[in-house]
Amino acid sequence: MRIAVVAPARELDRGTAARAEAFVAIAFPEIELIVDPQCFLSDGHFAGSDAERAAAFVRRANDPAIDAIWFGRGGYGSNRLLDAVMPELGPAARDKAYLGYSDCGFLLGALYARRIGRPIHGPMAIDINREGGDATVTRSLAWLTSGDRAGLEPGLGDRPAAAFNLAILTAMIGTPWLPDLTDHVLLIEEVSEPLYRIDRMLFQLAHATQLKGLAGVRLGAVRDVQENDPPWGESLKTMMTRWCGEMGVPYLGRAEIGHDAANRVVPFGLA
Amino acid sequence: MRIAVVAPARELDRGTAARAEAFVAIAFPEIELIVDPQCFLSDGHFAGSDAERAAAFVRRANDPAIDAIWFGRGGYGSNRLLDAVMPELGPAARDKAYLGYSDCGFLLGALYARRIGRPIHGPMAIDINREGGDATVTRSLAWLTSGDRAGLEPGLGDRPAAAFNLAILTAMIGTPWLPDLTDHVLLIEEVSEPLYRIDRMLFQLAHATQLKGLAGVRLGAVRDVQENDPPWGESLKTMMTRWCGEMGVPYLGRAEIGHDAANRVVPFGLA
Repeated sequence: MRIAVVAPARELDRGTAARAEAFVAIAFPEIELIVDPQCFLSDGHFAGSDAERAAAFVRRANDPAIDAIWFGRGGYGSNRLLDAVMPELGPAARDKAYLGYSDCGFLLGALYARRIGRPIHGPMAIDINREGGDATVTRSLAWLTSGDRAGLEPGLGDRPAAAFNLAILTAMIGTPWLPDLTDHVLLIEEVSEPLYRIDRMLFQLAHATQLKGLAGVRLGAVRDVQENDPPWGESLKTMMTRWCGEMGVPYLGRAEIGHDAANRVVPFGLA
Repeated sequence: MRIAVVAPARELDRGTAARAEAFVAIAFPEIELIVDPQCFLSDGHFAGSDAERAAAFVRRANDPAIDAIWFGRGGYGSNRLLDAVMPELGPAARDKAYLGYSDCGFLLGALYARRIGRPIHGPMAIDINREGGDATVTRSLAWLTSGDRAGLEPGLGDRPAAAFNLAILTAMIGTPWLPDLTDHVLLIEEVSEPLYRIDRMLFQLAHATQLKGLAGVRLGAVRDVQENDPPWGESLKTMMTRWCGEMGVPYLGRAEIGHDAANRVVPFGLA
């Protein structure tokens, strides 16, 4: 199985790539891991210019010898590629898995909207750096190689699901890149935001015309919450209950996704 | 002329209210300024609970003896009132001006979407505290009392306009609260955001299906820009040109609106 690593947002450092390659060589000898040199480009905020990142993604997605795209890391910038890459995806791109999270949710969402390939929300190459990172990335690689369900988010049931970082999902609302999530259970997670912003994003989620048909919402980890001035007076449960109520869909409780080592795998649709 | 001050987001302190009242008494003796006691309520992040803020806004908007609502200050929370207040607005609410900016843009936008009253983007009561704040709030009060055009944003022409904080506007995208801005020139401003987030918001603006018919976009002040890690490599002009290009509408240059003393008045529609 051949898995290509590309970086549509921020660059991957060579040490991280080497660590991921070494781990894969030992733990998943059946995988040929190809870290695209684009991952190491640097152009300001990004792993190369928009054109360089787009070209690497399109080249790997359209290569029939590649079975899966494993995103190297998030950051910011995947959204800047959508106009350029989405019309270029050919037949080989449709028969492929795409696995990542955070900012890479822009690409997962756009691919799912167009029914291209199999988008999957889960740990990326950079997560090898976390404490317990071997187990974290194993969930992604085991699902890709053998469909091993041990790393799947444990609450996935018989309804289709999709998972997103809340800031990325809400930035797609009202655009043609937001997939139709009718009858899906939506899993969201967040990192490095103050609670008033999370509340504002939940407002947009709740009032988004495109998302009225959700089957329910589950909340993953909310990490590294930034200070609020003045202090925020509501719990996450209160916020979720309020906005899901205003949306008219059930709040289904917590989920095991997030910017942490415990992040589990959520294949879009039915697993 | 009777102008009521309410606070749909964060509370106003009594010193600020007294300063605004004293200024109005001297500079605009024709105005009876009524600072609603709701402005001084405090409930965590907000000037009273959602119910208290909604009740004050609806009571003043529906009062035929009040000519204008002048928002006391922004912060966060106007969006939390929309479901409750919008269906309650009666005939007197339609014959009224509503003036504010920042978070209060949620209400201005929702009112404009439903053709209720005359929404106006401009300095609020709290701006009396700025250096030169007398001149700042005079622009709003002179427009309300006599239609004095001296305080209007100088680039307003013969096309309808609307003005918003970018974060507030993008949080309305995809919801029924976003007004139809076809053929409008859109003025945006921002405060306290890092440039990568501004770029992400411009992406959403550019790709929003609801906003495809804009006549053009102008950029107001971008204040208190937060640090980017890594440093951001593009100028605001590059960003505006890129995203307006992707949107297919002209970037029309800078505008004199923003979170500062120079903030000018933009009546929604034709001034």
